[in-house]
Amino acid sequence: NEPEYQWLKELGLQEKNPGVYDGNKWCGSGSVIDSISPINGRPIAAIQEGNKDDYNNAVINSMNAWKIWREVPGPLRGNIVREMNEEFRKNKNILGKLIALEVGKLQYEGFDEVDDYIKCCDLAVGLSRMIGGHIFPSERPGHMLMEQWNPYGLVGIITAFNYPASVFGWNQSLSLVCGNCTVWKGAPSTPLTQIAVSKIIERVLTSNSIPAGVCTSVCGGSDIGESMCKDKRINVLSFTGSTQVGRKVGVIVQERFGKSILELGGNNAILVDETADLDILMNELYNGLFVANGQCCTSTRRLIVHDSLYDEVLRRLLKMYSKTKVGDPFDGNSSSNIILVSLYIHYICYIDIRYRYV
Amino acid sequence: NEPEYQWLKELGLQEKNPGVYDGNKWCGSGSVIDSISPINGRPIAAIQEGNKDDYNNAVINSMNAWKIWREVPGPLRGNIVREMNEEFRKNKNILGKLIALEVGKLQYEGFDEVDDYIKCCDLAVGLSRMIGGHIFPSERPGHMLMEQWNPYGLVGIITAFNYPASVFGWNQSLSLVCGNCTVWKGAPSTPLTQIAVSKIIERVLTSNSIPAGVCTSVCGGSDIGESMCKDKRINVLSFTGSTQVGRKVGVIVQERFGKSILELGGNNAILVDETADLDILMNELYNGLFVANGQCCTSTRRLIVHDSLYDEVLRRLLKMYSKTKVGDPFDGNSSSNIILVSLYIHYICYIDIRYRYV
Amino acid sequence: NEPEYQWLKELGLQEKNPGVYDGNKWCGSGSVIDSISPINGRPIAAIQEGNKDDYNNAVINSMNAWKIWREVPGPLRGNIVREMNEEFRKNKNILGKLIALEVGKLQYEGFDEVDDYIKCCDLAVGLSRMIGGHIFPSERPGHMLMEQWNPYGLVGIITAFNYPASVFGWNQSLSLVCGNCTVWKGAPSTPLTQIAVSKIIERVLTSNSIPAGVCTSVCGGSDIGESMCKDKRINVLSFTGSTQVGRKVGVIVQERFGKSILELGGNNAILVDETADLDILMNELYNGLFVANGQCCTSTRRLIVHDSLYDEVLRRLLKMYSKTKVGDPFDGNSSSNIILVSLYIHYICYIDIRYRYV
Amino acid sequence: NEPEYQWLKELGLQEKNPGVYDGNKWCGSGSVIDSISPINGRPIAAIQEGNKDDYNNAVINSMNAWKIWREVPGPLRGNIVREMNEEFRKNKNILGKLIALEVGKLQYEGFDEVDDYIKCCDLAVGLSRMIGGHIFPSERPGHMLMEQWNPYGLVGIITAFNYPASVFGWNQSLSLVCGNCTVWKGAPSTPLTQIAVSKIIERVLTSNSIPAGVCTSVCGGSDIGESMCKDKRINVLSFTGSTQVGRKVGVIVQERFGKSILELGGNNAILVDETADLDILMNELYNGLFVANGQCCTSTRRLIVHDSLYDEVLRRLLKMYSKTKVGDPFDGNSSSNIILVSLYIHYICYIDIRYRYV
Repeated sequence: NEPEYQWLKELGLQEKNPGVYDGNKWCGSGSVIDSISPINGRPIAAIQEGNKDDYNNAVINSMNAWKIWREVPGPLRGNIVREMNEEFRKNKNILGKLIALEVGKLQYEGFDEVDDYIKCCDLAVGLSRMIGGHIFPSERPGHMLMEQWNPYGLVGIITAFNYPASVFGWNQSLSLVCGNCTVWKGAPSTPLTQIAVSKIIERVLTSNSIPAGVCTSVCGGSDIGESMCKDKRINVLSFTGSTQVGRKVGVIVQERFGKSILELGGNNAILVDETADLDILMNELYNGLFVANGQCCTSTRRLIVHDSLYDEVLRRLLKMYSKTKVGDPFDGNSSSNIILVSLYIHYICYIDIRYRYV
Repeated sequence: NEPEYQWLKELGLQEKNPGVYDGNKWCGSGSVIDSISPINGRPIAAIQEGNKDDYNNAVINSMNAWKIWREVPGPLRGNIVREMNEEFRKNKNILGKLIALEVGKLQYEGFDEVDDYIKCCDLAVGLSRMIGGHIFPSERPGHMLMEQWNPYGLVGIITAFNYPASVFGWNQSLSLVCGNCTVWKGAPSTPLTQIAVSKIIERVLTSNSIPAGVCTSVCGGSDIGESMCKDKRINVLSFTGSTQVGRKVGVIVQERFGKSILELGGNNAILVDETADLDILMNELYNGLFVANGQCCTSTRRLIVHDSLYDEVLRRLLKMYSKTKVGDPFDGNSSSNIILVSLYIHYICYIDIRYRYV
Repeated sequence: NEPEYQWLKELGLQEKNPGVYDGNKWCGSGSVIDSISPINGRPIAAIQEGNKDDYNNAVINSMNAWKIWREVPGPLRGNIVREMNEEFRKNKNILGKLIALEVGKLQYEGFDEVDDYIKCCDLAVGLSRMIGGHIFPSERPGHMLMEQWNPYGLVGIITAFNYPASVFGWNQSLSLVCGNCTVWKGAPSTPLTQIAVSKIIERVLTSNSIPAGVCTSVCGGSDIGESMCKDKRINVLSFTGSTQVGRKVGVIVQERFGKSILELGGNNAILVDETADLDILMNELYNGLFVANGQCCTSTRRLIVHDSLYDEVLRRLLKMYSKTKVGDPFDGNSSSNIILVSLYIHYICYIDIRYRYV
Repeated sequence: NEPEYQWLKELGLQEKNPGVYDGNKWCGSGSVIDSISPINGRPIAAIQEGNKDDYNNAVINSMNAWKIWREVPGPLRGNIVREMNEEFRKNKNILGKLIALEVGKLQYEGFDEVDDYIKCCDLAVGLSRMIGGHIFPSERPGHMLMEQWNPYGLVGIITAFNYPASVFGWNQSLSLVCGNCTVWKGAPSTPLTQIAVSKIIERVLTSNSIPAGVCTSVCGGSDIGESMCKDKRINVLSFTGSTQVGRKVGVIVQERFGKSILELGGNNAILVDETADLDILMNELYNGLFVANGQCCTSTRRLIVHDSLYDEVLRRLLKMYSKTKVGDPFDGNSSSNIILVSLYIHYICYIDIRYRYV
């Protein structure tokens, strides 16, 4: 309710927000938490999370919505995604600003994140007129083999704190055109982004008279995540997060013969041989080290440099760090609000690079 | 300039219109013609068509624009098509009304035609992130075969009078995302639709700082069409029209090893065997006979009915005709402005239907 | 060594057989078991299974072979599979006879099983000239996205007792053209088929100077199977068998982020509505009930019949059973050596069939 | 009948050969010609070519055969192609020797040509289990769009003198698995290869009780070629030969709305910039200049060399020519029987190479 956060009202956010959209209504009977901006450590707004009953209602509503959604022809499902796309275009700046505030990113990184969602919708709309099975020749006279692609049902989506909108977006937009419904649980530290995105989606669904259970959303903790893993009604579970948790998620879902999509941590290296162009290197390193404060599955974790270039690379790297300002992304002078990823420079001589079978 | 046609000004049309967009400017040094509505036989507005010099300028500008357009990344080309799509959505009703007026269709058929354009753009935008070649295994160690799809260059598009906008649209939207430029010649009877559509496209290109030669447009007669057939700079020629003309077009383009796409006349039959559901039949016949006044490559030309159903089908057909009102599509009471396609009812006994190798 | 089994020598089988091909030699340091024909309960020959050390050697040799195999161009890998195919064609009858003897199938079912292997090789050879990634448009000027398909490495294949050759074949032939090596463990009751097939494969590999570790083979029990599940060097594990075991396999492989392919039990129903053609039904039922003695993942387990047809279906079913002779497949009078799958006939009235979202 | 040509009898060739296989019998009522080896200018054997009546009979028989062939399931068509493949493997050396003799190639080039046929069959067999249409989502509820690929019918194949077997092979093997029948006219200078190949094919078809009209073969001159172009029963015409003739062929086929495949002359250049590795260059040039005596659509016609390398390239080129022996390919000392392609070395300075839109 502070004056500086008045703009959040445009996204439908209030001082205290129900954290669950169960397909019928906004509700929430779990604990009340604050969303705290990592920029200044101060609360932005309060959220009442969902408990297991809220989650269960959301799944029931999604299953009912699915009976209708699966019968909507693909191109018309695509048209709904296109309308969501339009809404995200319109709200790109304000939504990006909220992401920057809640995650502690630079503002343009927040805008870019919404842009990723938008581009995925563009792809999904096109796919809604293309995807389908193949026809194969049969050995039996007068027959053919027809591969018919059917929707799975409910796709559970558990997203990470670093990309609270786009990770959901590329799972949701593609799930939707395929005829699946989605049940979303975001990271506990980014509930406001989850609520703001879900409100936009809800609006598009209801204004098209589509049951809004097509996309339900539950803010909550690891108890909700665990329920989703075990829940046989969640036919596919897409999890983005740590390798440690992802390992457990994969096993629990496998145990019930569910499908899982696991987007886990990276351990990316840059190999610098003696012919490397250091200007290109530094440019890529800047992205690899500082984008999303280095909190990204595609961040650079290891830098393997040829003996002969080691000193120069080190010198440039130190200079790059010293020139980078850490500060408030809403203050125009900061170029980043950096929480550094751990970086090790290996003093090794790299000899033979083989890319093909890495 | 008559009061009843004031709404055409919203589409940028005037009492007298230059009929050529050569990529730089609107011009036209050919004959001045009137666009006459088949509804009432009265002129709507005048157009100065292009002559061969105008055409030549358009091609030169398209070729220059192509050098830039082919370097624009596919997804960004898709984004331009997406913006065109937005403009067509906004102008759907007024553009559809112009089509109805100039072609003599029902108004909803005009709206539907713009809708076809719109849907093709949706598909094209998705394709702009997908299309490309395949990688194949090579017999040589350490090699692979890579199939790289490159744009052709200039796609000439000659459209027919019955669908003055959508036939252009599905050629143009797909050409554009593939990295080709288009040179358009519409039917001599539908210049206003051609001009209105081209003005929308021009606006989107220039507001994105894309050379507008990407899509040039020449109103003109068969001399322009003939030039396009013979012109080696037109790498692909897409012709929609009569089988008679299409046969000549295909030969002239083949002579110079160009590529042609020929959408020519149909000769569609409906086969009615003794088990047919006549309600479904009459519904399909209505579409097959009356849509676009029956002036459509997918119109029903032949009706082959089983002996035992002949009398009943004839009775229902006569009733359908007698109930159909012919009149002004802008007058709410008319259900169609029908110029009948010739229909022959064959009195034959159909015995064995094989669909597979028709 | 009995006169009636002399023909097994043509397949390289002896009275006592080493059960492991480790890529270098035939060996085996595990327990000695007899392969017993279910037809007459008598031993066919003895096999010394592999122990964990044998298995470990096989994996080491496969990994070394993979370093060479992955560099062999796809079409040349296809050519090796083609030569295997030729050998299976030549040995089809004698190999099929062994399968019939060891599994207790009809002889023609044994031949058909080899035929399935052969057809899969035909497909694989074609694929060796086709498979590969796609090229996608990039958002960055002058760039494209290239999807390069690389082999996984080692594919572990655990096969079931009912199809000891073909289940291996469709995994192995496709793995090979993709550039993977295979490590095979068959069912403990079908070691002779596993050895005979592996000897053919070994011959083709060595005669082409390809390291025979490309396809290693270990006869053994559940300890070997368990080792394969846990072994990080087995990049993909393909398991065919019971749902119960498959559930465990999937979880163990998932725990180490391996890939698994699980072909588990079926629970297939035939729905018979009131319009069913009972001649077609009985024909399909015959296949569904009796093929492979009903021991097949595609066997019919449930028959759901409309009220009005129940009595007639039951009458025909009893007649079909009574006419089926159970006996020795090598005795020409038997039409099958039937061990019946449990079949329940549900007395229910089926009302509305929806195929799309089953 | 000369002793040195006795081996031709193994291919079913005689002193005088009927030049037409019309699907029923070997016949020929046209002129009698000699096949003359360009190696020594002496006749190998005589052939009675077909006249227009022979051609007409062949087409009628192909059309009748097609009614059966199109109903043979794809994988079984593939199996017929696989058996042809086996026969070509068995006859590879003797057929390759005939090609070398009749075309005037090196013997290994004759073997390689048969090998190309063989590899195309491998691909075709795999395709016979894969090819087919796609399923697309429809806008109408409860519908889908199904793309069913049907065979065209008769594929006419006109082949060139330089690759008398393989050019036919890659057209025929793919046509066959798609369900088409083929009508073949080879070059007038290579009738013996055409007859020998057709005899192998006939044998496979008849031994499988497939009507041999599936592949008919007519030795003849330009009158037969012209008939094929004009013949509406030839649904697809694949022509390999000169650009000059191909231009006419394309036009005649287009005039009747037929499909044509034109494989015409090349005009290939090698660009040598200042960083070029001359060893690689000379190796590629050797192939580009001397393979098939330089009589190949992929031969090098132009060599564009950077200023600074011109003298060295010229020196190496002269050395390569001087070391190449021209002579009888059946005499072990010759490395080629060279009839030189015209080669121009342009003394130019090449500045900027753009590959993408050549």
